[in-house]
Amino acid sequence: MNNPLRVLIWNEYRHEKRNETVRAIYPQGIHGAIAEGFAGATDVIVKTATLDEPEQGLSEQAVASTDVLVWWGHTAHREVQDAVVDRVQKRVLEGMGLVVLHSGHFSRIFKRLMGTNCSLMWRDENEKQRIWTIEPGHPIAAGLPEHFELDHEEMYGERFDVPPPDEVVFLGWFQGGEVFRTGCCWQRGHGRVFYFQPGHETYPTYHNANVLKVIANAVRWAAPRVMLPDALRNVPALEPLSQTR
Amino acid sequence: MNNPLRVLIWNEYRHEKRNETVRAIYPQGIHGAIAEGFAGATDVIVKTATLDEPEQGLSEQAVASTDVLVWWGHTAHREVQDAVVDRVQKRVLEGMGLVVLHSGHFSRIFKRLMGTNCSLMWRDENEKQRIWTIEPGHPIAAGLPEHFELDHEEMYGERFDVPPPDEVVFLGWFQGGEVFRTGCCWQRGHGRVFYFQPGHETYPTYHNANVLKVIANAVRWAAPRVMLPDALRNVPALEPLSQTR
Amino acid sequence: MNNPLRVLIWNEYRHEKRNETVRAIYPQGIHGAIAEGFAGATDVIVKTATLDEPEQGLSEQAVASTDVLVWWGHTAHREVQDAVVDRVQKRVLEGMGLVVLHSGHFSRIFKRLMGTNCSLMWRDENEKQRIWTIEPGHPIAAGLPEHFELDHEEMYGERFDVPPPDEVVFLGWFQGGEVFRTGCCWQRGHGRVFYFQPGHETYPTYHNANVLKVIANAVRWAAPRVMLPDALRNVPALEPLSQTR
Amino acid sequence: MNNPLRVLIWNEYRHEKRNETVRAIYPQGIHGAIAEGFAGATDVIVKTATLDEPEQGLSEQAVASTDVLVWWGHTAHREVQDAVVDRVQKRVLEGMGLVVLHSGHFSRIFKRLMGTNCSLMWRDENEKQRIWTIEPGHPIAAGLPEHFELDHEEMYGERFDVPPPDEVVFLGWFQGGEVFRTGCCWQRGHGRVFYFQPGHETYPTYHNANVLKVIANAVRWAAPRVMLPDALRNVPALEPLSQTR
Repeated sequence: MNNPLRVLIWNEYRHEKRNETVRAIYPQGIHGAIAEGFAGATDVIVKTATLDEPEQGLSEQAVASTDVLVWWGHTAHREVQDAVVDRVQKRVLEGMGLVVLHSGHFSRIFKRLMGTNCSLMWRDENEKQRIWTIEPGHPIAAGLPEHFELDHEEMYGERFDVPPPDEVVFLGWFQGGEVFRTGCCWQRGHGRVFYFQPGHETYPTYHNANVLKVIANAVRWAAPRVMLPDALRNVPALEPLSQTR
Repeated sequence: MNNPLRVLIWNEYRHEKRNETVRAIYPQGIHGAIAEGFAGATDVIVKTATLDEPEQGLSEQAVASTDVLVWWGHTAHREVQDAVVDRVQKRVLEGMGLVVLHSGHFSRIFKRLMGTNCSLMWRDENEKQRIWTIEPGHPIAAGLPEHFELDHEEMYGERFDVPPPDEVVFLGWFQGGEVFRTGCCWQRGHGRVFYFQPGHETYPTYHNANVLKVIANAVRWAAPRVMLPDALRNVPALEPLSQTR
Repeated sequence: MNNPLRVLIWNEYRHEKRNETVRAIYPQGIHGAIAEGFAGATDVIVKTATLDEPEQGLSEQAVASTDVLVWWGHTAHREVQDAVVDRVQKRVLEGMGLVVLHSGHFSRIFKRLMGTNCSLMWRDENEKQRIWTIEPGHPIAAGLPEHFELDHEEMYGERFDVPPPDEVVFLGWFQGGEVFRTGCCWQRGHGRVFYFQPGHETYPTYHNANVLKVIANAVRWAAPRVMLPDALRNVPALEPLSQTR
Repeated sequence: MNNPLRVLIWNEYRHEKRNETVRAIYPQGIHGAIAEGFAGATDVIVKTATLDEPEQGLSEQAVASTDVLVWWGHTAHREVQDAVVDRVQKRVLEGMGLVVLHSGHFSRIFKRLMGTNCSLMWRDENEKQRIWTIEPGHPIAAGLPEHFELDHEEMYGERFDVPPPDEVVFLGWFQGGEVFRTGCCWQRGHGRVFYFQPGHETYPTYHNANVLKVIANAVRWAAPRVMLPDALRNVPALEPLSQTR
């Protein structure tokens, strides 16, 4: 693709307004920090959108002009409207990429695309996580080390109730004793979905260079390869049918 | 499992009432013909249910006492209520098996579990289909020949808009020139889902011994192995956390 | 299957003879300890075989009368003869199950069936491992807890150079900071292969009830469903060909 | 990658020398016809090699300077030397791409990487094949129509004895009544393998624009993303181990 990739970073953007700790870490919002990760990139056009904007930041026009959508949400999943979930799902199935971050595992759009509860075990006790790159040849792992640490993260543990991923790129180790399928890929319709586990709002995860690189890689991996409308089609026979009827 | 498997065969049961051709083929309903396939089996208890029964035949109690649900629907997918779809999805994710037949590819429950449009190409011109067993070692293929024919079937052609199946057991060849992933398996939550393509209401597909054997095998393959409720859980650390915080 | 499953537990059986520590832990050999796990079972007939027996314990007759083969080897992989590897591979492709344990990841038969190097990272410093059951509904996980510990194990860490598993049933957490795909399934031909990571010879892993249960489950999961010879076949057309030639 | 992709098209090149029909269709050899498919491309450097060249055209230096290897062989699979198979396998596992064509399903390198017999059913009666693109969003399907025909092809039918593919991009329909997984992807080590079924030597398949486009796409899809040597590694602990030992 020669045209720049149109990336929309969507953030619930509530914690940052209400909680001083979160605001101190993300003064421009989590969306702002993630957008920083694309600073200087010439192959993408990055926009941001948030829940409290008109049409929840995801109008028909906004979605239709997005190639890859990045999603962060946590406390307000239920506020996301049916029309928005329908619109995003339709666009993913046509070919748009979707990168779901951290607590977005419980977003309506992720659950809609997975068909499962997307539950997991959790513990927010500020512990160390180590992320292992188990597929160094995967485009989402490009330039990442064999492993890297986040000194402060919420624990997300298995069993993660998702359909078997098409590919698992990263596994997570937690100091408290758990493991997680930290970076997972799925195809849905013509679109591709990547889930990446780190990113609790009270820790500076989205200022970590490795985390930003994973997201940047995932966005490019999820770039649409086709954009095809849904179609149930009644078709004529390609070969003669007369003989057996 | 020593207890008999509790199988519920659900049928929309509208064509049979309205259309003489269909009624002539399936005087006991499509559900009745499928139930016949289990005649004499001592390892299953087979019940049937239909759309126009109270609570659409799928009350809380009915679903809770079902191990494997077989689904046939076509003209009335939209009439199936939210509460029923929610209930069946919840039970599948806990471990219940689901066998979806033919036009059930467009049922609300199948689309819900797949997360995709589940579209395909079709043609109803009474043509020959040949079904190829590509995984003879799969439990759903037990006792089936390398290939078998249905002289009269509706064509369903690719692209079938479903997530990549965990396993493809059968492929279909159509006289008119198309192919199809005729028998596909997916895991969702703790439950297992099998889709089997043949079974248009105007043809005697569910009187075919091979088709009945596939369904009987699929029901036993989809038998619950666990039955676990959904649970988001906050858990304490298993290992000491003090050092890095 | 009504006939008992014929299980052959093959062990290199060298460490036990040479090393007092190992002999103290496994006075009957590792094969003997694993066989103990089936004590009292009436659905299996368990035999054992070792490298230094005639035909390396895997004669044509021995292999031909085995339904599921369990493999433990470490220091003498290279001594296993071509004819033995060929024979076992042929039988797996026909339908025999194969359960490969611990250092068997480097066995000739496992590498032959995987097509890859099967390398990994390792460290033998007597550390704690925790095994997480990520697919509680898988037959190999039947009766296993959500997680269990081995207080003394060799670390095996990612990246494990194997083809993407069909199913990952267990993940491993190591005290030293690594993770591993501890229990993995693959289909090869009509046979099924399970790899299970724990089991260093200097630790009493094969006396652990959970480990023995995993092996017992895996053996039953890997039971042949068909037993079909390899066949390249020239076949006549099933449909008339005249029209387009 | 800014450097051009180094593609090596390897052909057994025996039929063309011995059989006038084949020579008439492929006067420059099958390798020559495939190379024509890259004419004018500026992102690749295409070389060819054949079995009867020194070191079978696959010297250490030739393999080491190849990014993607295309393989056509048929009558002389057994002549390919161990050293060559070992060398190519090693390079694939490090990251080189491999595109295996038609009768190459029985090549030693393909069987080595698959671990299975790679058998199938066949019939050479000059029949029509129709190829269905079932994943239009896959890079290997870029620019291909929903389906295309080859008026003259050898039939290859299921069951194709290969491990479950990571992705199936094309399905094949044959006039004589069979189906086939015509285009399949596998990962092996860090390398990627694509098998494409059409291409019998007595038909002009490699002059077909769609076939050439599939091969061209596959070559670019299989481009190395990393090139990493095999390494069994003994590593120190990343976290303190003292507490539990």
